[in-house]
Amino acid sequence: MVRLSPSRLHDSLRSPALGSIGFLNEVMTRFPDAVSFAPGAPHPGLVADLDVQRCIDRFLDHLVHEEGHTPKQARLRLYEYGPSRGLINGLVGEALRRDLQIDAPSNALVITVGAQEGMLLALRALFRPSAGDVLAVANPCFVGITGAAGLLDIPVVGIDETETGIDLDGLTAACHRARADGRRIRACYVASDFSNPGGNRMSLECRRQLLELAEREDLLVLEDNTYGFTTAPGHELPSLKALDKDRRVIHIGTFAKVCFPGARVGYVVADQPVDGRGRLLADELAALKTVVTVNTSPLGQAVIGGMLLEHGGSLAELSRAKSELYQRNLNQLVDALDRTLTGRVPPGVEWTRPAGGFFVRMRLPVPADVELLEISAAEHGVLWTPMAQFYLDGTGDCQLRLSCSYLDPDQIETGVRRLANFLDKEIGQ
Amino acid sequence: MVRLSPSRLHDSLRSPALGSIGFLNEVMTRFPDAVSFAPGAPHPGLVADLDVQRCIDRFLDHLVHEEGHTPKQARLRLYEYGPSRGLINGLVGEALRRDLQIDAPSNALVITVGAQEGMLLALRALFRPSAGDVLAVANPCFVGITGAAGLLDIPVVGIDETETGIDLDGLTAACHRARADGRRIRACYVASDFSNPGGNRMSLECRRQLLELAEREDLLVLEDNTYGFTTAPGHELPSLKALDKDRRVIHIGTFAKVCFPGARVGYVVADQPVDGRGRLLADELAALKTVVTVNTSPLGQAVIGGMLLEHGGSLAELSRAKSELYQRNLNQLVDALDRTLTGRVPPGVEWTRPAGGFFVRMRLPVPADVELLEISAAEHGVLWTPMAQFYLDGTGDCQLRLSCSYLDPDQIETGVRRLANFLDKEIGQ
Repeated sequence: MVRLSPSRLHDSLRSPALGSIGFLNEVMTRFPDAVSFAPGAPHPGLVADLDVQRCIDRFLDHLVHEEGHTPKQARLRLYEYGPSRGLINGLVGEALRRDLQIDAPSNALVITVGAQEGMLLALRALFRPSAGDVLAVANPCFVGITGAAGLLDIPVVGIDETETGIDLDGLTAACHRARADGRRIRACYVASDFSNPGGNRMSLECRRQLLELAEREDLLVLEDNTYGFTTAPGHELPSLKALDKDRRVIHIGTFAKVCFPGARVGYVVADQPVDGRGRLLADELAALKTVVTVNTSPLGQAVIGGMLLEHGGSLAELSRAKSELYQRNLNQLVDALDRTLTGRVPPGVEWTRPAGGFFVRMRLPVPADVELLEISAAEHGVLWTPMAQFYLDGTGDCQLRLSCSYLDPDQIETGVRRLANFLDKEIGQ
Repeated sequence: MVRLSPSRLHDSLRSPALGSIGFLNEVMTRFPDAVSFAPGAPHPGLVADLDVQRCIDRFLDHLVHEEGHTPKQARLRLYEYGPSRGLINGLVGEALRRDLQIDAPSNALVITVGAQEGMLLALRALFRPSAGDVLAVANPCFVGITGAAGLLDIPVVGIDETETGIDLDGLTAACHRARADGRRIRACYVASDFSNPGGNRMSLECRRQLLELAEREDLLVLEDNTYGFTTAPGHELPSLKALDKDRRVIHIGTFAKVCFPGARVGYVVADQPVDGRGRLLADELAALKTVVTVNTSPLGQAVIGGMLLEHGGSLAELSRAKSELYQRNLNQLVDALDRTLTGRVPPGVEWTRPAGGFFVRMRLPVPADVELLEISAAEHGVLWTPMAQFYLDGTGDCQLRLSCSYLDPDQIETGVRRLANFLDKEIGQ
């Protein structure tokens, strides 16, 4: 019988990040009664009452009454192959214009299988590793983007993420260093509103300066807006794409959190003109998509389109209840940590107090590694995510990530009490 | 404003195949009244009566009564993120065992976003271009596999497809040639039952010899089974995977044709053990999938799972009506060509008479290029696909492909009459 040698498989399969995802799933399965601060998944209560058929019917109604299809044509659009760029581009484009002041024509949008496929397509279209193209990422970094870069053999350089964004001097220096080496930083990935795992938010000043830097150093910006909707009302900042006068920003979003993950629907705004081809970058992404997933499930798009329509076509309306829940949960988590841990836990235990997103980071005086996680799960019934996997440079080994998204307030309280016991018993000696 | 230079985009975007897909769509849009033998899409009549909610309910019922979930848990499985390997692996594995004699455990299956993502994942896991890995493909070849190889910078070598399979001597010679160059043919892609675009079927003898060759030359076989279900009853041959004693075959399938394309659900059987990791190749594909699409839409999987369950879990039952329709259409097309063209069209016009699949090939005495297609569409109201895009070696320019799948019998008759006029007027001079 044939046996495959791991050394003959693609290098990206040796990435620790790919392995860690499997490990975390496995730990959660082994300790089903633990309170888990690990998953960044949406709260289950938000999707329990979803009526898929009603959403599909709402979208079909739209196709018939707004886009002039016959009922039969409309139904066929959901069942057949569809355009690789997507079916709901107009609805999504209008929502982005209205709610996020992102003014891009619908032909600058591609509807993707989640934000993940959007990242993969954008990286593939823009990067020629053989020509020395390098991706810069905020460090620590979402493993989806570094994983996609690995799959495409794209080298990655980490730039420190800061409490107010990204180390701009570090990014400039990395650009110069790459150029001196005959390489080039082609694009920089950031999550401007509440990063995963960092939980940081980029200030308006840093956004403006990043766009100036991008023009000065001739690089593109990949903006991941997954967590922007969790911003507290009245505290919104314009996205990088909304500030982008020079079309340097490729904006990537997902409906996984504001609708539900099971639809697998995300989008990319890529309005960059491609010289001499009369095309936009979005056209190139759609062309590449024909050999990745062909098209995003029209059925999934119909459900998301229907949900948007049920909220008057507004992303803000669609996400309001969810935004409130995650703000409540995050406040609850930070408050419980402050109440329960302050003065009780050993010196050197510190945690962040982010204003949005799903994630709090905690620093320990000892490595927060898989061995410690195993003890935390088995002895104290509480799960978290080691941060080291998110760092490109081997640092971050004394940090862990706590996600508030999947839990109810009483679970958060219980989890924090267990965490306090764990820190007391296992770290304090 | 930034302008992207095409020369700085990834090389795969310059592939003629990617462009030709866009061109064909565009021609079909410009000539909506033409009879189109171009698309390989399923017949619309087969999906018009689909009841998505009923299928979902059937699958939910299965999760509750067969897999022990509570109704609430079952619903959540459709809406949340799910395992990257898939939700319906057990159902699909059982159907493959029962109907195709493919005996693989459910952990050897990955449910993918169509066959296309399956090909991409298999290529990515198996190929290290930097180590000299080369993909062999039957020539002419489905653009989805060559396109995916291009996206991953994997070099491709074409091996002549024959009426009874693939040129085995040519494949052996290519293996030796690659080895002499310090490279290696890592795998060979074939569609054993009715290839697209060739329409050929591999004989039992050729299947056996290909497996022997694969063992002798130490290569893997990627078997695409998209069109196997169109085989006339009583004429089934065992798939390569069913014959595979050495686990050399990775079997790729899709529900796009036997259910409907809009679900975007396909699968890969990858039961190859990976040395020293206690894993199968399927585990590696599932790991890679986390950075491509995360997971296949559970909603889409539920609809497909429900359709399978409604047919007693049998692929053969599920596809019976569709298989009959495509056999009828193909016979109608070949019969109409024989009746209408024989003795009437200029010398040098020849066509194939395949026993299954969607596609007839026609040879012209002149190039069947996009200029001729434009004339065919504008002057004669009939569309077809130039074959040159499917050839890796620049041949095939005097061939066109006729697909029977999307049309009704009267449209096939009308289309063939128009084709006769076109050939008469434009080729005969």
